[in-house]
Amino acid sequence: MFAIAPAVGKANLSASQLKLLAGKARWIFRVGETGFPTIPTIAITRGAWEALQAERARKDTRLRTHWIACLFKLVGEDAKPPTLVVRTSASHHNGGLMPAKTGISAPASPEDSVDPSRPLAKAIKNAFDSYGFGQAWSGPRQDDDRSRQIVLVQTAASGELEQFLTRNAVTGALGPAPVDGSALPRLPEDIHALVSLLDAKAGRHMTCLVAIQRGQVQFVSARGIQATPAAELEAAVDRVSRKVWSAQNAVSRVDPARMAQLLHPRLRSTENAAPIAIGLGVAPGAASGIIVFNPEDAARLRARGKHCILVVNETGPADIEGMKAATGILTARGGMSSHAGVIARITGKPCVAGVRNLSVDATEMVARIGDREFRSGDRLTIDGSDGHVYAGVLPLAQPHIGGAIGKLLGWSDASRTIEVRTNAETVESARTALSFGAEGIGLARSEHMFFSPERMVALRRMILSEDEDDRARAVDGLVGFQTGDYSDLFSTMKGLPVTVRLFDPPLHEFLPRTDEDIEETAQSLGLAVRALRLRLERIAEINPMLGHRGVRLAITYPEILQMQMQAVIAGVRAATETQDKPVEFEVMVPFVSTVSEVAWVRDKVNTIIANSGVLRSGKVKFSFGTMIELPRACLRAGEIAPLVDFFSFGTNDLTQTTFGISRDDAPTFLAAYQRKGIYERDPFVSIDEKGVGELIAMAIARGRATNPGLKIGICGEHAGDPASLRFFAGLGIDYVSCSPYRVPVARLTLAQALA
Amino acid sequence: MFAIAPAVGKANLSASQLKLLAGKARWIFRVGETGFPTIPTIAITRGAWEALQAERARKDTRLRTHWIACLFKLVGEDAKPPTLVVRTSASHHNGGLMPAKTGISAPASPEDSVDPSRPLAKAIKNAFDSYGFGQAWSGPRQDDDRSRQIVLVQTAASGELEQFLTRNAVTGALGPAPVDGSALPRLPEDIHALVSLLDAKAGRHMTCLVAIQRGQVQFVSARGIQATPAAELEAAVDRVSRKVWSAQNAVSRVDPARMAQLLHPRLRSTENAAPIAIGLGVAPGAASGIIVFNPEDAARLRARGKHCILVVNETGPADIEGMKAATGILTARGGMSSHAGVIARITGKPCVAGVRNLSVDATEMVARIGDREFRSGDRLTIDGSDGHVYAGVLPLAQPHIGGAIGKLLGWSDASRTIEVRTNAETVESARTALSFGAEGIGLARSEHMFFSPERMVALRRMILSEDEDDRARAVDGLVGFQTGDYSDLFSTMKGLPVTVRLFDPPLHEFLPRTDEDIEETAQSLGLAVRALRLRLERIAEINPMLGHRGVRLAITYPEILQMQMQAVIAGVRAATETQDKPVEFEVMVPFVSTVSEVAWVRDKVNTIIANSGVLRSGKVKFSFGTMIELPRACLRAGEIAPLVDFFSFGTNDLTQTTFGISRDDAPTFLAAYQRKGIYERDPFVSIDEKGVGELIAMAIARGRATNPGLKIGICGEHAGDPASLRFFAGLGIDYVSCSPYRVPVARLTLAQALA
Repeated sequence: MFAIAPAVGKANLSASQLKLLAGKARWIFRVGETGFPTIPTIAITRGAWEALQAERARKDTRLRTHWIACLFKLVGEDAKPPTLVVRTSASHHNGGLMPAKTGISAPASPEDSVDPSRPLAKAIKNAFDSYGFGQAWSGPRQDDDRSRQIVLVQTAASGELEQFLTRNAVTGALGPAPVDGSALPRLPEDIHALVSLLDAKAGRHMTCLVAIQRGQVQFVSARGIQATPAAELEAAVDRVSRKVWSAQNAVSRVDPARMAQLLHPRLRSTENAAPIAIGLGVAPGAASGIIVFNPEDAARLRARGKHCILVVNETGPADIEGMKAATGILTARGGMSSHAGVIARITGKPCVAGVRNLSVDATEMVARIGDREFRSGDRLTIDGSDGHVYAGVLPLAQPHIGGAIGKLLGWSDASRTIEVRTNAETVESARTALSFGAEGIGLARSEHMFFSPERMVALRRMILSEDEDDRARAVDGLVGFQTGDYSDLFSTMKGLPVTVRLFDPPLHEFLPRTDEDIEETAQSLGLAVRALRLRLERIAEINPMLGHRGVRLAITYPEILQMQMQAVIAGVRAATETQDKPVEFEVMVPFVSTVSEVAWVRDKVNTIIANSGVLRSGKVKFSFGTMIELPRACLRAGEIAPLVDFFSFGTNDLTQTTFGISRDDAPTFLAAYQRKGIYERDPFVSIDEKGVGELIAMAIARGRATNPGLKIGICGEHAGDPASLRFFAGLGIDYVSCSPYRVPVARLTLAQALA
Repeated sequence: MFAIAPAVGKANLSASQLKLLAGKARWIFRVGETGFPTIPTIAITRGAWEALQAERARKDTRLRTHWIACLFKLVGEDAKPPTLVVRTSASHHNGGLMPAKTGISAPASPEDSVDPSRPLAKAIKNAFDSYGFGQAWSGPRQDDDRSRQIVLVQTAASGELEQFLTRNAVTGALGPAPVDGSALPRLPEDIHALVSLLDAKAGRHMTCLVAIQRGQVQFVSARGIQATPAAELEAAVDRVSRKVWSAQNAVSRVDPARMAQLLHPRLRSTENAAPIAIGLGVAPGAASGIIVFNPEDAARLRARGKHCILVVNETGPADIEGMKAATGILTARGGMSSHAGVIARITGKPCVAGVRNLSVDATEMVARIGDREFRSGDRLTIDGSDGHVYAGVLPLAQPHIGGAIGKLLGWSDASRTIEVRTNAETVESARTALSFGAEGIGLARSEHMFFSPERMVALRRMILSEDEDDRARAVDGLVGFQTGDYSDLFSTMKGLPVTVRLFDPPLHEFLPRTDEDIEETAQSLGLAVRALRLRLERIAEINPMLGHRGVRLAITYPEILQMQMQAVIAGVRAATETQDKPVEFEVMVPFVSTVSEVAWVRDKVNTIIANSGVLRSGKVKFSFGTMIELPRACLRAGEIAPLVDFFSFGTNDLTQTTFGISRDDAPTFLAAYQRKGIYERDPFVSIDEKGVGELIAMAIARGRATNPGLKIGICGEHAGDPASLRFFAGLGIDYVSCSPYRVPVARLTLAQALA
């Protein structure tokens, strides 16, 4: 217990006392120290309070004497015992805390100051007790160190109490700004000094309480508040322009996860669409997807890469996993501060809440909006910015980078040494990624080049044909199809590196499944349907994730490798003809587990490239690398490294095999696992540092030991997750490759990690 | 070049010369040294021969002088230049070698002794050249060190040349014994001394050539031959009884893989079965299984645990993988020394060859025996001992241990410290394993207790029921079913440890699949068929191997864990009532990847056991362990170890996840991988020491570091493979657990590994 703002003189806190200052206590002390008029305040820790109570049982008075001495420091120059106020001072504010207890008479006796049945001690006890509560859904409590929790005892202020924000909660402009849409009170000119002072000291949006008497301001307390991500970002950039922060400060203080929320899609146009319902837009961004009624279905669809909208009456703690898995959330009840709203904003999901004419029957899995019925599989679009709900899928416009976010990312690039590339195989996504600052393509999934009906037919003919000529014709056709794709991709990237991953997925994903497809394919192959079915049955796999895929395909179907290389080389050649910059293309082999696989493919690739003569022009740079995405590849990295120019870690498959978990099938138990505390976090979202992370670190160390020039990249989904990126940065990697929309997140996080 | 048996005096070879003696040269030298009359013989290495030829180009004569001096050592006391014989002396005999070239006149000039156009030098050259040939299918050549290959030049023997074996090729009894079914020649009494001498020196079956003139024996040459595994074993035990070998010698000299061939099944009875064809029994043992026509199908069936008979016209190098995967082999052509016969004996597969009335159309996938047609999926039984072929599946009788094999294994136990347990869950297989010397059950796959229609129905009700009471009734029923099984298993094992692995496979393996089953299950659950189908569809998994299985089931369906533990405890209690020895039961958790999973199950198991009071009797020993079968469990072993009494490595799943290979799906590329040399050996047969092996070694080191008393076992299929067992023995493990028929192999291999 110590006076952080005595009525007379300075606080003179020791270093260890300074360390204890959390929450409001911190700001009261720091404002008071500058000489700005501040309400006399004592801070008492739970540890001190409990020791004081324990002393009473021992009939000791040492601590009580000290406590009373502290209380005397609230007495001003007029020597009158002040009326007191007791406040909490939590390091993280939440709804369960005791509101300020005002109007407490100064203790008349020593016992008044410590007996919990008397007003002052009772208020202090209640304040400490209130730290135990709080909404369970706000996550694990941060105040683990109970004994350091603080309660404040203040002199009651004279005059009017007024509240305002240090910055506008939506625009981020420097305040004073109104709280919560209420009008801004009339405040004396002095207030600007306090606002600037607090904004500089705290470096975040604050809500501030002052007492005003006869135009004189007295500071009472302040605490941080959560502004919108846009407001935070604008404020950060504004602080730099005001020279309160350096650019580096701004880069290090913006939370990448919150910045990511600015990268939300919005509806492209609503001209031809009428909303079927209007609720409250409680978390910004627009989302379209399949309707789901429970967290399991949301997780299942997400695992399959599908967008979905979780539709419920209201959400509760059991829905958090489902909300994370959903693309958007729609609720019938609740408002801005509802569970759904809070969690949606934390997780960055668009959310429309409080749709009055929506009713959900989760058991029957039907949602009614007015007189329309929606069932699982139907589609909805929601706009979390204005609360509108539309039937079906509306086209979305993607965000772009500019203004404050552009400035911040620009600064961040100065302190970043790890390259940020993107996962893209279409010109459209490559352009998006470039607009977000991508420095190359780290993962072009070549199989995406076959995702059209016409190409699929040719691919099937190549796989299933047993006639050499027919197969050769199919191969030629496939080369032709892809050449243009590659040429466009290289041209779009204008000399930035493009890493093409060889064909990876299990073959049977490309084979006909429906009766109609099978009949059509049989006809095109001149095969009996029965014979084709037999052949397809043989190709079917029990565990395709661990089956005939990746490098295994290149080795067993060398014609696929040949065809892919031919198309890439033709694409490179075409691109060099339309641009001056050299084309930088990289080929990487997926799913290797032995050095012999890498050696086999490398020989073939090198031969094909040498025969093509494509490198002779001097306008082409080529390198060869391998994915490291199986535990054995990590263990044997020392053997593999001398054969390649780079390793690219596929953290999705590496997580699947290290844990023995198929991500597709995990939803059936992952939710239960997180509920029961078996997993602290979903290892497919944030990298498992202790297991998968150790394998990656081992592979890097072993690989660099035998090939010091080895380039290291990460191209799993973890490359877009801030926590994972911080871990990767510590491993000394050279680049990451993430989805286009995560490029800004990676730029900022990596700048912070290396600052 | 040096005389290994000079006509006069001793050879006086240097240590480095002795090291060069390979093949026949070795035995000629060793017999000659004892003073037994031996044909004068010179050995010349390829290195020396090539140097001699090179010298000729240089007009040098130093080596030639030495060579001629050697040749003079063949000249006996009569000083007459002898007629010469040239023989190969390969360290591994094979069919391509030059037969002995006889009747070569002694060289008349120095040039005669070196010019390859003259008879002696020509014969020597031809002999060396013949080392280059040999049947490719006998595997990679052992004579890698070409320059050390040896050719022999001998004095032609006077008198009759006679050949015999040192031991009977079938019974193993000490010879002289006839070669190949031909009659034994009349041999003088002296021959017994030679036979004993060679048997003691070589320690293996030898074929021996002697010259007999007027009752006098002169040793000409000898080389090792491959006897049957039974004859080798009898010979080894006989050598111990003759005090030629110590028991330890015998243990270390028998090849466990060949001994395993003695553990073949035979037909129980052929009384009611008439063979449909008779061929040559070229590899012993009986086999029943599904007919397959190609290696891929054989591998596929094997991966699914099915027995199959590979039926072909004849086999060639491309069939080796298929032969290894098949349970038995049936060919239309070929005999004892055909490719099929040789490979079948090497791999220990029953094989019937040369079935004249069999014709195979591999493309149409049909086999005709007489006028009967057999197709894929039909079943056959073959008896590789007498060449009989039967339609359908005949009951097989399993081998047992006794006589020589029993003695050898008894000796082996003296030098073995690693315990050998078995994988068994039925009383029948437990008894078999006990008869083979198993020292406990290291893996009882508890899910096998549900493999009956009645139990399956109850299990389904438990999994699918949403009614609490109904589920409770199903659980009770399941406990009742299993209690007797466990009680019988514990009683059979008479106090030896029994490790029960908790339910492991993906749930959906136990769910109804056929329309009939689904309708029946729906009825028993009082559910609409459509609703049940919907529920089943949700449970279906894309990659079941990495899905909702193992410990994940225990955590998400705690009632399964509860039910299993209740049944095990009831079984323990029943067993203690019928026997005096304490029941030693162990519970292990499958498929863990985090310490929190182990902690969760451990708490539950300990609570159930404590509540049951089963440990109070003092007649029960209990321990708790975990399978280590995922890469992450290996990495986190240090964290897991303090919570358990033992680790049991599941090397099958660990190999699948470390390589990222589903064993079920591997056949589509494994054969190509081995053909192209990507894999040296199938990692599911012999443990991958460099990858999976490193993970195991790491887990043992980390586990023992935090729990020095940790017991370590291996319970994958690798625990029955000699090469893998040798590797495991080096890791300091405490026990292995293999299938009952591999118990003797493990006993012998582990004794050798630790000797």
